[in-house]
Amino acid sequence: MIKASIIGATGYTGAELVRILSRHPQVELVALTSQSYVGQELGRVFPHLKPATTLVCSEQDVLKVARESDVIFTALPHGLSVPIVQEAIENGAKVIDLGADFRLDDQAEYEHWYKVEHHASGLLAEAVYGLPEINREKIARARVVGNPGCYPTSAILGLAPLLKKGLLQANSVIIDSKSGVSGAGRGLSLGVHYSECNDSIKAYNVGGHRHIPEIEQELSKLAGEKVAISFTPHLTPMTRGILSTIYGNLTKDVSYQEVHQLYSEFYGEEPFVQVLPLGELPQTKWCYGSNHCFIGLVVDPRVNRVIVVAAIDNLVKGASGQAVQNMNLLFGLPETSGLEFAGIYP
Amino acid sequence: MIKASIIGATGYTGAELVRILSRHPQVELVALTSQSYVGQELGRVFPHLKPATTLVCSEQDVLKVARESDVIFTALPHGLSVPIVQEAIENGAKVIDLGADFRLDDQAEYEHWYKVEHHASGLLAEAVYGLPEINREKIARARVVGNPGCYPTSAILGLAPLLKKGLLQANSVIIDSKSGVSGAGRGLSLGVHYSECNDSIKAYNVGGHRHIPEIEQELSKLAGEKVAISFTPHLTPMTRGILSTIYGNLTKDVSYQEVHQLYSEFYGEEPFVQVLPLGELPQTKWCYGSNHCFIGLVVDPRVNRVIVVAAIDNLVKGASGQAVQNMNLLFGLPETSGLEFAGIYP
Amino acid sequence: MIKASIIGATGYTGAELVRILSRHPQVELVALTSQSYVGQELGRVFPHLKPATTLVCSEQDVLKVARESDVIFTALPHGLSVPIVQEAIENGAKVIDLGADFRLDDQAEYEHWYKVEHHASGLLAEAVYGLPEINREKIARARVVGNPGCYPTSAILGLAPLLKKGLLQANSVIIDSKSGVSGAGRGLSLGVHYSECNDSIKAYNVGGHRHIPEIEQELSKLAGEKVAISFTPHLTPMTRGILSTIYGNLTKDVSYQEVHQLYSEFYGEEPFVQVLPLGELPQTKWCYGSNHCFIGLVVDPRVNRVIVVAAIDNLVKGASGQAVQNMNLLFGLPETSGLEFAGIYP
Amino acid sequence: MIKASIIGATGYTGAELVRILSRHPQVELVALTSQSYVGQELGRVFPHLKPATTLVCSEQDVLKVARESDVIFTALPHGLSVPIVQEAIENGAKVIDLGADFRLDDQAEYEHWYKVEHHASGLLAEAVYGLPEINREKIARARVVGNPGCYPTSAILGLAPLLKKGLLQANSVIIDSKSGVSGAGRGLSLGVHYSECNDSIKAYNVGGHRHIPEIEQELSKLAGEKVAISFTPHLTPMTRGILSTIYGNLTKDVSYQEVHQLYSEFYGEEPFVQVLPLGELPQTKWCYGSNHCFIGLVVDPRVNRVIVVAAIDNLVKGASGQAVQNMNLLFGLPETSGLEFAGIYP
Repeated sequence: MIKASIIGATGYTGAELVRILSRHPQVELVALTSQSYVGQELGRVFPHLKPATTLVCSEQDVLKVARESDVIFTALPHGLSVPIVQEAIENGAKVIDLGADFRLDDQAEYEHWYKVEHHASGLLAEAVYGLPEINREKIARARVVGNPGCYPTSAILGLAPLLKKGLLQANSVIIDSKSGVSGAGRGLSLGVHYSECNDSIKAYNVGGHRHIPEIEQELSKLAGEKVAISFTPHLTPMTRGILSTIYGNLTKDVSYQEVHQLYSEFYGEEPFVQVLPLGELPQTKWCYGSNHCFIGLVVDPRVNRVIVVAAIDNLVKGASGQAVQNMNLLFGLPETSGLEFAGIYP
Repeated sequence: MIKASIIGATGYTGAELVRILSRHPQVELVALTSQSYVGQELGRVFPHLKPATTLVCSEQDVLKVARESDVIFTALPHGLSVPIVQEAIENGAKVIDLGADFRLDDQAEYEHWYKVEHHASGLLAEAVYGLPEINREKIARARVVGNPGCYPTSAILGLAPLLKKGLLQANSVIIDSKSGVSGAGRGLSLGVHYSECNDSIKAYNVGGHRHIPEIEQELSKLAGEKVAISFTPHLTPMTRGILSTIYGNLTKDVSYQEVHQLYSEFYGEEPFVQVLPLGELPQTKWCYGSNHCFIGLVVDPRVNRVIVVAAIDNLVKGASGQAVQNMNLLFGLPETSGLEFAGIYP
Repeated sequence: MIKASIIGATGYTGAELVRILSRHPQVELVALTSQSYVGQELGRVFPHLKPATTLVCSEQDVLKVARESDVIFTALPHGLSVPIVQEAIENGAKVIDLGADFRLDDQAEYEHWYKVEHHASGLLAEAVYGLPEINREKIARARVVGNPGCYPTSAILGLAPLLKKGLLQANSVIIDSKSGVSGAGRGLSLGVHYSECNDSIKAYNVGGHRHIPEIEQELSKLAGEKVAISFTPHLTPMTRGILSTIYGNLTKDVSYQEVHQLYSEFYGEEPFVQVLPLGELPQTKWCYGSNHCFIGLVVDPRVNRVIVVAAIDNLVKGASGQAVQNMNLLFGLPETSGLEFAGIYP
Repeated sequence: MIKASIIGATGYTGAELVRILSRHPQVELVALTSQSYVGQELGRVFPHLKPATTLVCSEQDVLKVARESDVIFTALPHGLSVPIVQEAIENGAKVIDLGADFRLDDQAEYEHWYKVEHHASGLLAEAVYGLPEINREKIARARVVGNPGCYPTSAILGLAPLLKKGLLQANSVIIDSKSGVSGAGRGLSLGVHYSECNDSIKAYNVGGHRHIPEIEQELSKLAGEKVAISFTPHLTPMTRGILSTIYGNLTKDVSYQEVHQLYSEFYGEEPFVQVLPLGELPQTKWCYGSNHCFIGLVVDPRVNRVIVVAAIDNLVKGASGQAVQNMNLLFGLPETSGLEFAGIYP
């Protein structure tokens, strides 16, 4: 049994990790730390987890946690993970960071977008971007995995086959994403106050969202050239789910069937990517609570553009499920272990 | 491995059975029948189940299904199950009926409320009401289980301890229930058209809902006297969940602590009933997608009344999860087998 | 033109007053005060009001406001209105208080339930409970109107005809109310964080909600005897609306038709109470944004109980619309002036 | 008083017309026709309109309606309006068609996209596209107004200033629109069944939606060259509202301030278009129930693209409110008459 701990267990991604790991056949949860709920049973903080665990939230004693754990999941706001990951690694634990601190390769880029200094440039260089469908082999050999952001997961999975084949004009890519409100976390603010956002949709952080450098970094690697995107996130009146509608200009005349074929082959063996049949498009509810990404495609010859629609659950494939998928890779387990559950529908 | 089939697999309760059974460690799904989708993969009808099963919907050939199955789940509108259950039983399968045809003991009562004749009075008499927390032993020996309605499950679990102790005035019981819209099924009607019911709540079938005789039957058995209730269902703008707020006049002066103690003991060993700590009340989202029932209690000495609030997922503990719990009992499996998953939150 | 001001204009009831008053043909809005937004245009705080007013939020200078206003609406948390109302009255303005400070007749009752002292017992004694359908004449002569709470409005309108006729057992009344989330106001808390309350329903403050004494006070007056109720509010996943499902035992054998006739006559001339035809029940969305109360009735002879279902918009008939109705009475205007708009549906 | 009638009064746009017209100071509603509800009071079909009108739905006798009306609103599925409009015009009524039959200038284009023949090419040529902010003068002189589609209204208002100035590359325009479910009308289908679309978002008709030719027609006129767009509509879990997020490549280097200035001037006098301050973006709820369009802007110099976000209520500015605005123009009334109400928030 792999001994796993969570630093920051009482946010939504932490709770989702517990939901998944508590039923993982090769995992034993050993510690859950929290800032706000030390000494409380997690099942009191999140009653839906009452049947799943009797663990009590403990203080964030990283040394102790690292010594008793094979793997640590850090689920903290950006900037807070760096010292923790360093200490954990030094004490022999592997780390999967669900925050933003180990996603960007370039320290200056990180510091530019996140407005904090990064004090572990060595680890940053070593860390692997944890998108298994792209980086499977590297992840398996990593000590630190930077778990992808929710929006980037949908965007990169949606674009990878086309970019890798050089079929898209690098600077034509526009990603229009719609996220459920849980993506904003558990912290209180007027923008996610029920009465303010129910029955209403809005765009936010247009052109300035911190997931932009992460998306561009990975798309550029796939394309083999610098890709600059437009990315617009929207707050959508639903609890979970991300739908990314992605537009790109084709570099040559390819048919709908050819593009569809390309995706079907690219993701043919992937357990968590479902390329939909010709003519079908996903809705986010299909992956509510599951680790699956559904991808639908349209080629619009009128404007010589391809439109890709990718749907995930922001808290599962977009966060905690993907983190468990990465853990499976780190420890040589079947990649789907503990993640085989279907979504909840309707 | 137990061979299980579903007659009526393409409604919501059918799909939910597939979601659960496809991951049950002792079950093999062998046939899924449908009226509307014969020949189609279930994963096309319900894409969230694409990763769960490759089964194709077949015609409703009961004889064939019965011969290849150890257990059949019937998930059909009332009146349609009777001949199917009869044929299945005659051909050696056990049956769990998720419809209303085998819940009432009294044929006349059934025919009065459901406005159809019942052509299998023998089976009706034999069938066991499938609420494990109340009827565990009988279910284990049954051939036909009448799986409880969603509202009755919440109401009976909410009232059993008090009624069994004689602590409630039999005719004071009022059950005010709020159900998510999935309880109305997948059939189209103006009342469950999104624009008509979103952001709005209403009561319906006041004093005339068909779950009344079922609730009264079971409550009367528990109380040892005839119990007549008021029951008001409400259509609530949420997909899943039932919250039943239950009122009853106390027959004697008992304290909040005593009532709480009574519930804690009554349900102490139950894997799927969570009695909340003093002062806490449930919300339906805690059991979203899970087989758990959460119960909160208040005793209001101002009016000498107890108020019980019970929350379930109408499609799980209120239907398909409970059906699997019954199947586990029928075949001597651990009662929680295949049902250990926590709810999805938030 | 009546000069009207709002003390506390940047909460939901304040904004709703502006929405209504800005189109009232006999009203001129002269001042809007705020704690948090002094110096900002209200149309920046609430962009939906941009087209309605160019007023800027000012400091809470009661003396100044009172001198330039014929009527002041106070929309503040309980306890804060008392000194303001006193000062306003002394300076010649009439006051309609949308908070709880002038609803209860009995000072001790107020202090018991609200846990604060009341420093204006004289005004408390003088203030009129502002439910026009019950107190029309008194309101017309008042200086201070205690505008009813949202839940009480639905409960009292739902019960008045039966109680006044002595048709209900005084202590049998149970009020099960479902409120939209806007009833909780604009203040942030985890319970009204979108992800926590979307797609979920819960009861709260069972047996202890502060609207209980207000409801009992008014029902007791109607009944001519002490009425003690059970009242259970529920947080419902919708922005606006209250549905109160009300149960009472009949004191004698009256038919559904007779009860319906009683209501139809009682409310026959009322512009804002719609008694539904026999067999029909309301949904909250019918009064979304309007000042109307819809009432449906069922008599259940099985249990000799009447069930009344009353629907209002908590922010209109349950707060700001009713306040304007009271203002119309105070100034001898047609009671419907400025309030004739229909609800928004769907 | 202008005598107005509605052909097709029992769909959502018909009901919304009644809500608005019943309070219009210069309008008398004289006839409401319906296919499904002949002989019923509209206030029974839509109880929220009970307080607004006592009119009874009549048969669709166009001759009779035309003779007693100054203006007729046709709110019918495409293809059905053509003969009705012809008959109405011949009998002296002006017509505002809320369907799609009189929006396209080109008959062949209409027949290509709508798959029906158009039997009134003369009227088609004569009809004026009813977007007042663009076509005010022509509308004032029209006999037949083709009221714009909901998506086109948001898209054209969002793009007009830039295209008219030649600041956008004609073929770079991408319109990603999110619509509330009421846009799908009152007809039943699985896609708008509550349980299927609640808490979920999806794209539909990608590259093939019938609003494409209408948008391209008007954008091309504004740009003075052929504009070909990508347009992706999304079904969003909310009742009302359209948010269009619009992307375009700039033809030259203009600053955010310059673009903002351009919009502020272009719409400076418009009563129903609100250009938001620099840095602000709209949410759909701000115009819930109102005739206002809110526009926010971003210029992203990283990619030399402008992003415009336009929000409307699909049933008001996107349909019935705009139709009344057109009626005001047709009859020389103040353009805002009957439309001054603010939105409902929260």
